Amino acid sequence: MTGKDKFQQVFLDGEREGRNGFSEAVFCEGKSLEQIQAVIAERKHAGQNVLGTRCPPEAGEKLVKLFQGLTYYSLSRTFQLIQTPPAFYQGSLGILAAGTADVPVAEEAWQTAKFYGLESHRFYDVGVAGLHRLLSQIDEIRKMDVLIAVAGMEGALPSVVAGLVKSPVIACPTSVGYGAHFKGLTTLLAMMNSCSEGITVVNIDNGFGAACAALRIFRGKNAKRV
Amino acid sequence: MTGKDKFQQVFLDGEREGRNGFSEAVFCEGKSLEQIQAVIAERKHAGQNVLGTRCPPEAGEKLVKLFQGLTYYSLSRTFQLIQTPPAFYQGSLGILAAGTADVPVAEEAWQTAKFYGLESHRFYDVGVAGLHRLLSQIDEIRKMDVLIAVAGMEGALPSVVAGLVKSPVIACPTSVGYGAHFKGLTTLLAMMNSCSEGITVVNIDNGFGAACAALRIFRGKNAKRV
Amino acid sequence: MTGKDKFQQVFLDGEREGRNGFSEAVFCEGKSLEQIQAVIAERKHAGQNVLGTRCPPEAGEKLVKLFQGLTYYSLSRTFQLIQTPPAFYQGSLGILAAGTADVPVAEEAWQTAKFYGLESHRFYDVGVAGLHRLLSQIDEIRKMDVLIAVAGMEGALPSVVAGLVKSPVIACPTSVGYGAHFKGLTTLLAMMNSCSEGITVVNIDNGFGAACAALRIFRGKNAKRV
Amino acid sequence: MTGKDKFQQVFLDGEREGRNGFSEAVFCEGKSLEQIQAVIAERKHAGQNVLGTRCPPEAGEKLVKLFQGLTYYSLSRTFQLIQTPPAFYQGSLGILAAGTADVPVAEEAWQTAKFYGLESHRFYDVGVAGLHRLLSQIDEIRKMDVLIAVAGMEGALPSVVAGLVKSPVIACPTSVGYGAHFKGLTTLLAMMNSCSEGITVVNIDNGFGAACAALRIFRGKNAKRV
Amino acid sequence: MTGKDKFQQVFLDGEREGRNGFSEAVFCEGKSLEQIQAVIAERKHAGQNVLGTRCPPEAGEKLVKLFQGLTYYSLSRTFQLIQTPPAFYQGSLGILAAGTADVPVAEEAWQTAKFYGLESHRFYDVGVAGLHRLLSQIDEIRKMDVLIAVAGMEGALPSVVAGLVKSPVIACPTSVGYGAHFKGLTTLLAMMNSCSEGITVVNIDNGFGAACAALRIFRGKNAKRV
Amino acid sequence: MTGKDKFQQVFLDGEREGRNGFSEAVFCEGKSLEQIQAVIAERKHAGQNVLGTRCPPEAGEKLVKLFQGLTYYSLSRTFQLIQTPPAFYQGSLGILAAGTADVPVAEEAWQTAKFYGLESHRFYDVGVAGLHRLLSQIDEIRKMDVLIAVAGMEGALPSVVAGLVKSPVIACPTSVGYGAHFKGLTTLLAMMNSCSEGITVVNIDNGFGAACAALRIFRGKNAKRV
Amino acid sequence: MTGKDKFQQVFLDGEREGRNGFSEAVFCEGKSLEQIQAVIAERKHAGQNVLGTRCPPEAGEKLVKLFQGLTYYSLSRTFQLIQTPPAFYQGSLGILAAGTADVPVAEEAWQTAKFYGLESHRFYDVGVAGLHRLLSQIDEIRKMDVLIAVAGMEGALPSVVAGLVKSPVIACPTSVGYGAHFKGLTTLLAMMNSCSEGITVVNIDNGFGAACAALRIFRGKNAKRV
Amino acid sequence: MTGKDKFQQVFLDGEREGRNGFSEAVFCEGKSLEQIQAVIAERKHAGQNVLGTRCPPEAGEKLVKLFQGLTYYSLSRTFQLIQTPPAFYQGSLGILAAGTADVPVAEEAWQTAKFYGLESHRFYDVGVAGLHRLLSQIDEIRKMDVLIAVAGMEGALPSVVAGLVKSPVIACPTSVGYGAHFKGLTTLLAMMNSCSEGITVVNIDNGFGAACAALRIFRGKNAKRV
Repeated sequence: MTGKDKFQQVFLDGEREGRNGFSEAVFCEGKSLEQIQAVIAERKHAGQNVLGTRCPPEAGEKLVKLFQGLTYYSLSRTFQLIQTPPAFYQGSLGILAAGTADVPVAEEAWQTAKFYGLESHRFYDVGVAGLHRLLSQIDEIRKMDVLIAVAGMEGALPSVVAGLVKSPVIACPTSVGYGAHFKGLTTLLAMMNSCSEGITVVNIDNGFGAACAALRIFRGKNAKRV
Repeated sequence: MTGKDKFQQVFLDGEREGRNGFSEAVFCEGKSLEQIQAVIAERKHAGQNVLGTRCPPEAGEKLVKLFQGLTYYSLSRTFQLIQTPPAFYQGSLGILAAGTADVPVAEEAWQTAKFYGLESHRFYDVGVAGLHRLLSQIDEIRKMDVLIAVAGMEGALPSVVAGLVKSPVIACPTSVGYGAHFKGLTTLLAMMNSCSEGITVVNIDNGFGAACAALRIFRGKNAKRV
Repeated sequence: MTGKDKFQQVFLDGEREGRNGFSEAVFCEGKSLEQIQAVIAERKHAGQNVLGTRCPPEAGEKLVKLFQGLTYYSLSRTFQLIQTPPAFYQGSLGILAAGTADVPVAEEAWQTAKFYGLESHRFYDVGVAGLHRLLSQIDEIRKMDVLIAVAGMEGALPSVVAGLVKSPVIACPTSVGYGAHFKGLTTLLAMMNSCSEGITVVNIDNGFGAACAALRIFRGKNAKRV
Repeated sequence: MTGKDKFQQVFLDGEREGRNGFSEAVFCEGKSLEQIQAVIAERKHAGQNVLGTRCPPEAGEKLVKLFQGLTYYSLSRTFQLIQTPPAFYQGSLGILAAGTADVPVAEEAWQTAKFYGLESHRFYDVGVAGLHRLLSQIDEIRKMDVLIAVAGMEGALPSVVAGLVKSPVIACPTSVGYGAHFKGLTTLLAMMNSCSEGITVVNIDNGFGAACAALRIFRGKNAKRV
Repeated sequence: MTGKDKFQQVFLDGEREGRNGFSEAVFCEGKSLEQIQAVIAERKHAGQNVLGTRCPPEAGEKLVKLFQGLTYYSLSRTFQLIQTPPAFYQGSLGILAAGTADVPVAEEAWQTAKFYGLESHRFYDVGVAGLHRLLSQIDEIRKMDVLIAVAGMEGALPSVVAGLVKSPVIACPTSVGYGAHFKGLTTLLAMMNSCSEGITVVNIDNGFGAACAALRIFRGKNAKRV
Repeated sequence: MTGKDKFQQVFLDGEREGRNGFSEAVFCEGKSLEQIQAVIAERKHAGQNVLGTRCPPEAGEKLVKLFQGLTYYSLSRTFQLIQTPPAFYQGSLGILAAGTADVPVAEEAWQTAKFYGLESHRFYDVGVAGLHRLLSQIDEIRKMDVLIAVAGMEGALPSVVAGLVKSPVIACPTSVGYGAHFKGLTTLLAMMNSCSEGITVVNIDNGFGAACAALRIFRGKNAKRV
Repeated sequence: MTGKDKFQQVFLDGEREGRNGFSEAVFCEGKSLEQIQAVIAERKHAGQNVLGTRCPPEAGEKLVKLFQGLTYYSLSRTFQLIQTPPAFYQGSLGILAAGTADVPVAEEAWQTAKFYGLESHRFYDVGVAGLHRLLSQIDEIRKMDVLIAVAGMEGALPSVVAGLVKSPVIACPTSVGYGAHFKGLTTLLAMMNSCSEGITVVNIDNGFGAACAALRIFRGKNAKRV
Repeated sequence: MTGKDKFQQVFLDGEREGRNGFSEAVFCEGKSLEQIQAVIAERKHAGQNVLGTRCPPEAGEKLVKLFQGLTYYSLSRTFQLIQTPPAFYQGSLGILAAGTADVPVAEEAWQTAKFYGLESHRFYDVGVAGLHRLLSQIDEIRKMDVLIAVAGMEGALPSVVAGLVKSPVIACPTSVGYGAHFKGLTTLLAMMNSCSEGITVVNIDNGFGAACAALRIFRGKNAKRV
């Protein structure tokens, strides 16, 4: 292969969804309504789907009025504008959340997964302080191909879960806590030091990233789209 | 009561075991053999019992030769010289350790408790990555009056245990870990943020302090010495 | 005992007050009025008592109007709805606060203790910068079965107190301070490093947790309800 | 299903390789030669394979003499004792290392993967300061099913790689650096904040954990053993 | 030379633009409109040019009305009042920004450079997650005499760029990120640990300082004003 | 006054003891015996006194043999070579140490004070865990003109003392502690946040600096040398 | 002396101005207007002087209307109610401020000193980036008995000053800065590590504490009130 | 230009000295003598010059014996093997060091500069605690085209210098300090927050990097090789 071809292959392959398979999402935090609006309009005009994360309710409600077909989900603070429904991946993603305060981050993961073509099963309120809630659903959890474990506080959920299942466990720390929690740093560090083998971790409150990591697994060679 | 009496009561009450009930232990880290030896000799001469913690094996072996009756325990790095056996408290202290690397700290707690008059039940290798080991002994653990939970890494053990028992749970973080563990800081912070109610925490690797905290509970009004 | 029985004992024992003896409290920080209201309504309907912590005054005042029998206490930012008065524990809990700015956290501990069935004696404004205030009450403090020491700034109160008493001392750091105080981290670390034996520590501003830790002690085998 | 069956399924399923599919590895750091030797002997007697990590050369050389069939690899500081060769997974794992100083951690990942039944392709010296080295191999890298990206210093490798491939990227920070590197913390934090979607991160120098995370992906439903 | 002369040379040389060549800029953060207004009036009266940084839009709009000739630029939050146009330096400064959220800091650098007499070429949206955007402009970037690389998140841009060019690279971290980003600290530390030789770093969000550092280079002996 | 005179006054005034009154001490940590030896020889030749701090015993013993008149004090790890005995200041400096492990730092302060012409009264083992030891000497402590309070662990000593005396209190944190003590950082931060007014703090283990700060006070206008 | 007498001497000596010579100041941050008002009223009724710090302008203006004779100073955010003018100390306190943004903290020190009976000389805008401003006033600065050096950013002012004077230098870090300044932590740490001997440091933005520390020096045995 | 040409230009341009102008140096820390030896042999065989940094004396002395022409400099812990003397740049680099303990890092910068073709003027012992030493040489310092300011402790040197000169100032923090210095972190942060405009900073103890940054400036368009 020549250098020219190489260069083209490296950089021009797969223009439609980006080189790594993700159409870029709109991270709304710190953006004005006008800026968000402009991006959506541009994408809409290009016939693309649009996912927005960290979008506050006030902005979300206005966007729903401005763009036909756009839906806003206040719990996860995400919006979606689907012009071409995605093909869906085979397999099952399980999203676990330790406490109710962790649910918004878990829902961001769920919305992101759905946007890119993956339906999830959700297992909420399964934190380790009430172990029976987790264990009573362990059969179903074990059926999942990939797991995302969302937790704040001491972040013990992924450790306990990864000791009970063989599938990949993506740990997502949340900023739920106070005092010596440092807005999620404690949870992140605890997850990094899990005594269970093979846990991986994403940034604090990064439900979007956890879902993207799961999607990278489903997009693998052996996975097939339905 | 007059000021004079008050002053005397405040400071002169309970001279024998110190004002807070503990005869002072010898923290050997950073002390020379000569310094340790001098303290033991002084206490021995005064007819007191002596407990030493963080005593390295080389020093321990020499002390055994120097002082008749002194015993050294290399796993916990503690020594004891008992001249007057302590009266023993009623009740049962359970000491849990997550992994084998946490055992030295747990044994320091066990030795300390024994020195001050309290026998302990030990439940080792009950870390949350292998939940079945903890749950298979939960009946016995529930019978304990007070629990010390020793763990390193992500430090999830006290959270899980405190969700299953009603007794006091004293969490003792250890420096067992590496990388983003920061010699126990991660474990300490995680334990501080437990989602289970009413856990309290002592300093990193402080098995001595955890046992002292347990002893304060057993020494309470309702407790009786055998 | 069979596996089935074991499983039931582990997870189904003691449904009424939860597996660890605490009916769950409502942590209001970050919850909307609607969310808090929904939890209260559900618990009220089930005939349970409800304790709420970190409830801002505006929400508290509205809840008082919405639920008959609910009381709100602005200083501790807690509310209580008592449908079945708790049986009270024998024994005395002493709650110490270093400065007036630490009082709200101390009062949260007091309210929590009362909710779960324990009356407390309060010793406020006994910080170490004015040692005479602490020492003039030391007789009464020594009569307590368990002590909670609430302090901000350099957090020296539990060290000084634990040197003078034999009972358990639960140290509760507060976020009272500024500059190099880091919202309580300095106090927490100082308390962790106390030179007095057997102090245990809870999270920053966690009056609720300190009271729960005290309750675990009172709930012990030897304690009896009145 | 009855409670008994449930309990058995939760805890007794899959005893041979442990509940999560990993036969436990021996983390040698902080263990004496005697302790390591004892574990190996026990496993050997039970007919199991043994993997040891963080084993210093002196200990490794002695173990090779003590146990027939045990091999020690000084670069990765790992040993293996294979009594039953593992079945191998289909698919390809790519292990990337930024600089030569990162190679030991990368080799630990490679040895771990091999031990559990997965051959890897290694792409070393592909750090971002010499972009041509990475890009000249991008065709081969893109053929991998899963990637592990090992890097120290500013840890930019996984960000650049994940922007060019669609497969899962497991980022493994190393302690290679000095000054404001804090033994890998800077790298870990940088990787956590990658601008490329769907990167996940393991602990500092945790080549073992990165390989385990990769294995969890290959062990998935769609993967088949050869 | 006498002490007197020396003293004068040290401190009285170059009064017009200050001893180090910079007429002082107005850092508006934390200043009231009245305070900003007073400084501008004083400088205007003295016939000097005025540059203001970190000036919020509301203040900026008012200043435009108050001072004839003053221009405010909301994207960079800077204002300029030019009474004597600066002589311009020969040479070209390239300002790179990784993502759109980094643009305000980059524009602050651009405005600062222009104010002191240097036109810049801007290369925006060249973050490493989309390497093709950077590489497609590398010819132009290589023509620059000095480069400022502005980036948030993991801050990999200067490392990649400095591996491809020979000119000075001034890295400017931004506070763009969340979670374990700590408002730019992660980016700053990553840039400090770059594996590319000879990168230097300025404070977080300090576009002004990055431009001043570039100006110090252009002001060098070999540079000539046009 | 002319510029010339000014320059001379600024920089040439007080050559004998340096511009700020201190003849420079030799900080031995990280210096080779040869380097230390060279400095001493130079100073000795110039007829000056020499103070060395942080000098390890092995080096100290050799220096005693090399330089006639040089004395080494192993507890404080300091040496002194006095050729011209200093004039002594009027007034009394009190040096307090919380525990025996803090004594080396306190002795460094004592040696430093003596070297520069100030005798100190030492009050050791007065830590707050045994309040009676401090209070039984409070009369004498109150007679001191300036106090240095040396403590490790939680560092409460200066807070308690400053609440009882009117004189200046210089707090000197030590690295005595373990776990969440971070080699003195916790003590330093606690002292910084003292609830007693007007405490000032020096660096960790900086007995030398604490004594210098005290000397600056005694050297004041009102103080007179004997 | 008997125990009773001792107790009285320790705790009852000097009731009027408190045991350490300071009538307590009102730290207004986090207090409601009602709470501040109550304290002032109580003190006023008792005929005492009142100093308030960290009092926001809105509260200050209301207090001026509420209490005759109370003065509020918005720059330092302090108020004073003087019923009995203090006797003034002999000697001169110099207060230095590096930049204009540091002035509010410096003025808090000035107001505090004045309240307790000490007039100060102020030297503002003497930061080290413009060394001539500092050196041109060094004659006057050298005449001061005690110096307070207030600075933010890199906090170099006390190091430079202490190298030029013999009097005590109390360093007061401020929160003036941004980015890697961490609200003053950087300045505090820098001051702690000064290369000039005998500098002491107070908490961030603690102008009040710096003045109290200075007062402790003036109150010394040799000082006399005018 | 075609894609092929572009690719070649991007990556194949300037093979001799690397794409960014630096022939790679050998960072010896953590490398065995064998590893270092192998790299030198390879480079020597290729006719290249070799620079080694952080090379301990024992290794250095052996290398001198192994390779003819290799010189080792113990103060900077660097070695050089020059086969083709570099052409030298016009212009002057000034290297300033605050204290003697900072000299090794400064010398590393000097050796690095020389290796790549740049002679430096050194100004040592010019720390801010003795301002006269800096100011007495300010005329010479001002003649330099670029300055490197090496300092530990509070790191004030670059701030003071940059306020007095117009040339680029590259600040290099060192690990010289103790206690709250954190091995150079304090110095690094202080330098980052300099109140003088346009200072840039490199990693702790990174004399090599500081020199490389200076070289990037001299290599600029306007600079000419002699």
